[in-house]
Amino acid sequence: MSSHLYEKIAVIGLGLIGSSLIKATMAKNLAGVVMSYDRDDAVRATAQSLGLGEVTGSIAEAVEGADLVVLAIPVGAMAAATRDMAPHLKPGAVVTDTGSTKTSVIADVTPHLPDGVYFLPSHPIAGTEYSGPEAGFATLFQDRYWIILPQDAPDEVVATFTDFLSGLGAIVEEMDADYHDKVLAVTSHLPHLIAYTIVGTAADLEGHLKNDVIKFSASGFRDFTRIAASDPIMWRDVFINNADAVLEMLGRFNEDLSYLQRAIRWKESDKLEELFTRTRAIRKKIEDIGQLD
Amino acid sequence: MSSHLYEKIAVIGLGLIGSSLIKATMAKNLAGVVMSYDRDDAVRATAQSLGLGEVTGSIAEAVEGADLVVLAIPVGAMAAATRDMAPHLKPGAVVTDTGSTKTSVIADVTPHLPDGVYFLPSHPIAGTEYSGPEAGFATLFQDRYWIILPQDAPDEVVATFTDFLSGLGAIVEEMDADYHDKVLAVTSHLPHLIAYTIVGTAADLEGHLKNDVIKFSASGFRDFTRIAASDPIMWRDVFINNADAVLEMLGRFNEDLSYLQRAIRWKESDKLEELFTRTRAIRKKIEDIGQLD
Repeated sequence: MSSHLYEKIAVIGLGLIGSSLIKATMAKNLAGVVMSYDRDDAVRATAQSLGLGEVTGSIAEAVEGADLVVLAIPVGAMAAATRDMAPHLKPGAVVTDTGSTKTSVIADVTPHLPDGVYFLPSHPIAGTEYSGPEAGFATLFQDRYWIILPQDAPDEVVATFTDFLSGLGAIVEEMDADYHDKVLAVTSHLPHLIAYTIVGTAADLEGHLKNDVIKFSASGFRDFTRIAASDPIMWRDVFINNADAVLEMLGRFNEDLSYLQRAIRWKESDKLEELFTRTRAIRKKIEDIGQLD
Repeated sequence: MSSHLYEKIAVIGLGLIGSSLIKATMAKNLAGVVMSYDRDDAVRATAQSLGLGEVTGSIAEAVEGADLVVLAIPVGAMAAATRDMAPHLKPGAVVTDTGSTKTSVIADVTPHLPDGVYFLPSHPIAGTEYSGPEAGFATLFQDRYWIILPQDAPDEVVATFTDFLSGLGAIVEEMDADYHDKVLAVTSHLPHLIAYTIVGTAADLEGHLKNDVIKFSASGFRDFTRIAASDPIMWRDVFINNADAVLEMLGRFNEDLSYLQRAIRWKESDKLEELFTRTRAIRKKIEDIGQLD
């Protein structure tokens, strides 16, 4: 008898999240076998050279006999990957994903899964601006939240999955899809959209000014460029697949920005100072709960 | 004969920049005497307990006999401070400032200075989100740009000041006021405005959602809260005093954001991917020139 929570784990997608998951699973000895699939030959070769467990170019082979299958791919690729792997899933297998949008992933994945397989959508609140298998590291999930959406999976299936994520070092929290997508629209999607925008605005400046903006990039802009260096495909898919929540939050943001714009034009110092004092308090709260990098 | 570039330096304002300047000057032994002034009793007491050289509650005493006077105060306070200290400046003294806007500071300071005193506006591209004398550290300016605006000061005055800044570890660059204010509007002022806005938008969410936004604050939002924790008075003054350049860049930003908003609404993936790929290249350039924290 093995003492592992899952005898075989299949990781679909060898990006930052997939490769970190493999490293963490191996480091903590949480599975008998970890087999991964990526559709990109070069990515698979890199993963192999990095010693990331068994790597295959066949999604069927990857998921065959797997007790847990993790879809660690852009949210726009979930439907096709699920369709491809579905016939090869073993009865009783648990399927999860790590996508940053949950309503869309549930809609894309669920119809393609066979009966007797449990879909437990999830989302690790962890990442960096780097992508690809070289970017992965075993401690990415340590002390980070990992949100799970139990849907109607049996309690013992949820409990085992929770134990596995805790074993990776993550703090597990339950949420429903709509609420998840709203929270993430504010904490992650809108900040990324804005960072992409401002770095794009700078990129469109005339040559001389653009060069000096890069040369003298101060704190503020530098932070934005880091965020705006995140994986383009992943983020393209996030915005398309969480459009409603992002557009709603963007509407609020635009109203608030217009208010500040007007305050600057009319030199209403008190309005600026009032807001800047209030936002400082939000940072203090985040520092207090210890979720800083 | 002393070997110091300046026998006495007066630092007006004991915030992050002023206190770091004192620490760096003392650490590098760049002056015979460093005397500082702050109008706030508690700040002066803290500075004294931190061993930040001679601290006085009289701006007249601070600048008396000083060879270099550094105005390290919010840009909205420059005019009044200059008026107060002007009668006590010694002939041949060099006055500089560290403000983040240059056109407004030149307009505010110049009319109050007596003849025979040289005004050399400047701006260290360095800082953190912390403020006050406890926040200062001697290496803040190490390998950071320090922009100077020589105006019509004699070459030897500019050369000595440049040597002093280089002695602090800074990289000195010359710029004119209009251009400085445009560059900083993009690299620093607009990013701060946007970070303040989005953190404010989050602060206005309903209780439950707001708490979870703080709890699950992901990379992106967390970075924005750090920026939005910057000194409220300093930043209020920056926006009021660089309104034209900030509003111009904000106009461009708003156009670009509307373009992305529309692309999300109409699910135009290609437009998103194209921009996100282009912004990644900007980060690469900044990494290449080595101005990262």
